[in-house]
Amino acid sequence: MDATTKINIPESDLPRIVIVGGGFGGLKLARKLSRSAYQVVLIDKNNYHQFQPLFYQVAMAGLEPSSIVFPFRKLFQGKKNVYIRVTEVTRVDPAAKRIHTPFGHCNYDHLIVATGADTNFFGNANIAEFAIPMKSVSEALYLRNNILDDYEDALTTPGYDSRQELVDIVIVGGGPTGVELAGSLAEMKKHVLPKDYPELNIAAEVDIYLIQSGGELLKGFSAGSSAKALRYLTDMGVKVLLDSRVTDFDGHIVSLQDGRKIPTQKVIWAAGIKGAPIPGLPETALTFGNRLAVDPYLRLAGVDNIYAIGDVAYLEEAAFPKGHPQVAQVAIQMGDRLARNFARSLDGKDWEPFHYRDKGSMATVGRARAVVDLLRPEFHFGGIMAWLVWLLVHLFAILGTRNKLFVFVNWVANYINYNQSLRLIIRPTFRKGSDGVGGPRSPDISG
Amino acid sequence: MDATTKINIPESDLPRIVIVGGGFGGLKLARKLSRSAYQVVLIDKNNYHQFQPLFYQVAMAGLEPSSIVFPFRKLFQGKKNVYIRVTEVTRVDPAAKRIHTPFGHCNYDHLIVATGADTNFFGNANIAEFAIPMKSVSEALYLRNNILDDYEDALTTPGYDSRQELVDIVIVGGGPTGVELAGSLAEMKKHVLPKDYPELNIAAEVDIYLIQSGGELLKGFSAGSSAKALRYLTDMGVKVLLDSRVTDFDGHIVSLQDGRKIPTQKVIWAAGIKGAPIPGLPETALTFGNRLAVDPYLRLAGVDNIYAIGDVAYLEEAAFPKGHPQVAQVAIQMGDRLARNFARSLDGKDWEPFHYRDKGSMATVGRARAVVDLLRPEFHFGGIMAWLVWLLVHLFAILGTRNKLFVFVNWVANYINYNQSLRLIIRPTFRKGSDGVGGPRSPDISG
Repeated sequence: MDATTKINIPESDLPRIVIVGGGFGGLKLARKLSRSAYQVVLIDKNNYHQFQPLFYQVAMAGLEPSSIVFPFRKLFQGKKNVYIRVTEVTRVDPAAKRIHTPFGHCNYDHLIVATGADTNFFGNANIAEFAIPMKSVSEALYLRNNILDDYEDALTTPGYDSRQELVDIVIVGGGPTGVELAGSLAEMKKHVLPKDYPELNIAAEVDIYLIQSGGELLKGFSAGSSAKALRYLTDMGVKVLLDSRVTDFDGHIVSLQDGRKIPTQKVIWAAGIKGAPIPGLPETALTFGNRLAVDPYLRLAGVDNIYAIGDVAYLEEAAFPKGHPQVAQVAIQMGDRLARNFARSLDGKDWEPFHYRDKGSMATVGRARAVVDLLRPEFHFGGIMAWLVWLLVHLFAILGTRNKLFVFVNWVANYINYNQSLRLIIRPTFRKGSDGVGGPRSPDISG
Repeated sequence: MDATTKINIPESDLPRIVIVGGGFGGLKLARKLSRSAYQVVLIDKNNYHQFQPLFYQVAMAGLEPSSIVFPFRKLFQGKKNVYIRVTEVTRVDPAAKRIHTPFGHCNYDHLIVATGADTNFFGNANIAEFAIPMKSVSEALYLRNNILDDYEDALTTPGYDSRQELVDIVIVGGGPTGVELAGSLAEMKKHVLPKDYPELNIAAEVDIYLIQSGGELLKGFSAGSSAKALRYLTDMGVKVLLDSRVTDFDGHIVSLQDGRKIPTQKVIWAAGIKGAPIPGLPETALTFGNRLAVDPYLRLAGVDNIYAIGDVAYLEEAAFPKGHPQVAQVAIQMGDRLARNFARSLDGKDWEPFHYRDKGSMATVGRARAVVDLLRPEFHFGGIMAWLVWLLVHLFAILGTRNKLFVFVNWVANYINYNQSLRLIIRPTFRKGSDGVGGPRSPDISG
């Protein structure tokens, strides 16, 4: 290993494991290796871990971003073998065992690619430019600001037709994110907007569309849960369009495959993701969905000491012939398996292969309306029991006691008064004309 | 009045009171006039009221912005005579009794200027460009992000000298904001930074400067409180420079009048404010500090039916020969007085003049360290009692039960573990290349 690495990680005799990405998988791995006989370098674009399953509640002004994210430095206080760097990884050089960042390079003994997935716009440049994705808490906050801004604008827009594109909202993608967003928008339409905007005829003017390319919602869930989610949403007034596809969006009009046009400025794109690997990895490693093919030990073929876990990894098992679903549980279990295997190495033991244990799936549609599949698809249930299970599971999964408490209080308050308090359009000021807007930190200072 | 107003306020038979600015004064007035026989139009750049006394805790990652701001629409739900518009007022036309906004104009019967104050850089363009003000929750959030970013950068910056400008912080202005900021930075330096950044030698490297042009801190407080604040800060390791002035700042080096240079990228400017009146008001109304001179009924001279309250208003009383201090209490009492006078008009009664009742001043320096002046300057006290009084008064002044609870929980948690959880660099994504960055909403949609 080099005597110096420009991103200033101290030399040590311990083997260095560099983890790129502090999502569910990368974080699990880093936490299990803290206080181990490895030097762990965790690199992420943000200084916090994000709890993705609740992004939609941030977008709906039901929760604050700070309640569902957690600073890495606080998690690793006192863990002397863990080094955190907040930056992007621009390239990996497998031959030199080195990654590059805008702040300098860093050598590794083992590299774990836990970079997750990006929004997949399927090559449509217009949609990529104008639609709103929801793959980060920053994007969720952007969506919140955008919805609130547009309702304010609607007040000063006299004509019914010109108001339509401000007040209507189109969600593309009938997976859990799309379903949960549609459900909470429907509740906002019913309970919050009429009180906030008595000058608008909310019931008559506001339409919420959910567009799904397949014939059912919640693909991968049991048929019973899919049907139940559809019935819930329809009951709540969401216009669900099945077997329907968005072909274009120019920022004002959505075009569907059947020729239909919907005027709206807000298209929320939850229709697909693709793996987000690091440049410099061998082309041959890339497979379906831009994911990295790994063997049962989560290793990439053709390179030494590089591993992939989570949404960016692709592994087939007998029960998952098309690879695992890109969900938190898979990432967590992969991070756990890899950490155990690194620990086994220290004890001179052989590695064990990864097997995914499916604990089930769940999605919430609204107050007292959720669907849960346990030991899928043998057992599923819905309604208020499913909703309570959903609340509990998510509450316990959130990092930090304070966060759990704040989320709980917000949920109780919102349940009692149907009235999120967080309808605030807050943007940090930007000065000095430079600081990265939503992107990675500006590399100009010490690059 | 015109048959139509472009910002879409419905016609009514009630006299229309337009309030520009929803700070302490404007909000008090609007709330007291809700459900009255006036039509009230409240215009603000933001869709929320900001609780300015706690901005510094947002900057220090101790509180979330959402805990100290409150959405106007939620405050006025069910108040059918109150109309809220989120926009800027670009100009007033006193002859036509009309204000102009990017969204169109609006006529008024009575206009209340409650636009508050802006940061005063005293004409220094360099300081205005590079220093960080703290007059909005957005600016506080910017400061937070900036401090955290710079500590992350310091980790990848090898030389001691080049790190200095990243880790040192200079606060200019020894009023309550400067004192409170310096105190909490000193606590962060002692309790949080060493745990978050064990790789940096925080105690040796980080310096916090507080620069005050006069010979004492907390001007306007009792001499005892001023001395106590100075002693507290010195004990906590803050480098307080009295009788000192900043003459220039280029983004990397602060120059003082005595020739001293301090390397830092962060200069927090809490050294002065100036009134922020609306363009179009008569020049003759402007007086000291860019404020609007009003008579004891808070009316501007030379124009009809225009009033000013709060930081932007200037009124001399026997006890305040140089005008009232620009603090929340004055604004609240002015809003209250004006609301009562409008109510008296409805009853055919004469108006009563404004008199300020000074309830005292307080500032907190750190844990169990605060100063309180009651019935100034007759009675003052400090220490833990003053700190508890400060906490209680501020807790009760914050709008909203949920906000009170969240602030309280955060305070208790921070007290117990010295460890703010909100050290998060979160920025909403900006897309479509257009939306106003920290500024007023973009007028392109319905302007």
